[in-house]
Amino acid sequence: MMTTWLDTVGWDERGLVPAVAQEADTGQVLMVAWMNREALKLTQQTGRATYWSRSRGRLWVKGEESGHVQEVQEIRLDCDADVILLRVRQVGGIACHTGRAHCFFRRLEQERWVEVEPVLKMPQQIYSVNERS
Amino acid sequence: MMTTWLDTVGWDERGLVPAVAQEADTGQVLMVAWMNREALKLTQQTGRATYWSRSRGRLWVKGEESGHVQEVQEIRLDCDADVILLRVRQVGGIACHTGRAHCFFRRLEQERWVEVEPVLKMPQQIYSVNERS
Repeated sequence: MMTTWLDTVGWDERGLVPAVAQEADTGQVLMVAWMNREALKLTQQTGRATYWSRSRGRLWVKGEESGHVQEVQEIRLDCDADVILLRVRQVGGIACHTGRAHCFFRRLEQERWVEVEPVLKMPQQIYSVNERS
Repeated sequence: MMTTWLDTVGWDERGLVPAVAQEADTGQVLMVAWMNREALKLTQQTGRATYWSRSRGRLWVKGEESGHVQEVQEIRLDCDADVILLRVRQVGGIACHTGRAHCFFRRLEQERWVEVEPVLKMPQQIYSVNERS
């Protein structure tokens, strides 16, 4: 079998790597999720960020239920070949399943985690069924 | 024992979480490494990004050999409490052990990984001994 770009990636013992999604325009780090080989291949082929949901044990096209898909502009790989960085356009401006723009809404302040980002849309208005992140 | 902010973090079965370091000024994602409880605590206490080196099996103050430390301006936690985001000032402007500004120097172009970021300083000029990332 021919070696492909997918073989360069250093999949962990579960066959996964972490993937960072970053908003292309603003540089905001939106979320970190996991990819397996198939998820990365689909991300490249479809131009839509596709992850491996560890909790659900299946492929997960980000936004498949909410409509908040991520259009992928660039796929990067790090020096150790075990982390993916996606530069994306976040459709709907909401990356987080809590209805916030991104998932990193808790900031450490004097040894307490403080929620510092507003909920833009209530999750029950986003999801008919329950999608995570 | 009192519950602390460190207990909120969802450490994995190895006691680790991934940590994304982002340059505060530019938004550039510099690197992703791993933290254990002690690494995160030290990061908060010292204001210098401290990770857990899986390859060396020890705490690793980023830049301890190269001088390319990361001054931490903000520590964030994601919705699932299992990813840390650090906003940092990267001293020396070089985050990657390859001598590049950041670790994500390979871009996917037509199913090939292409190195698209210049080496700013040769690793042998950076390290007396061998430090990774």
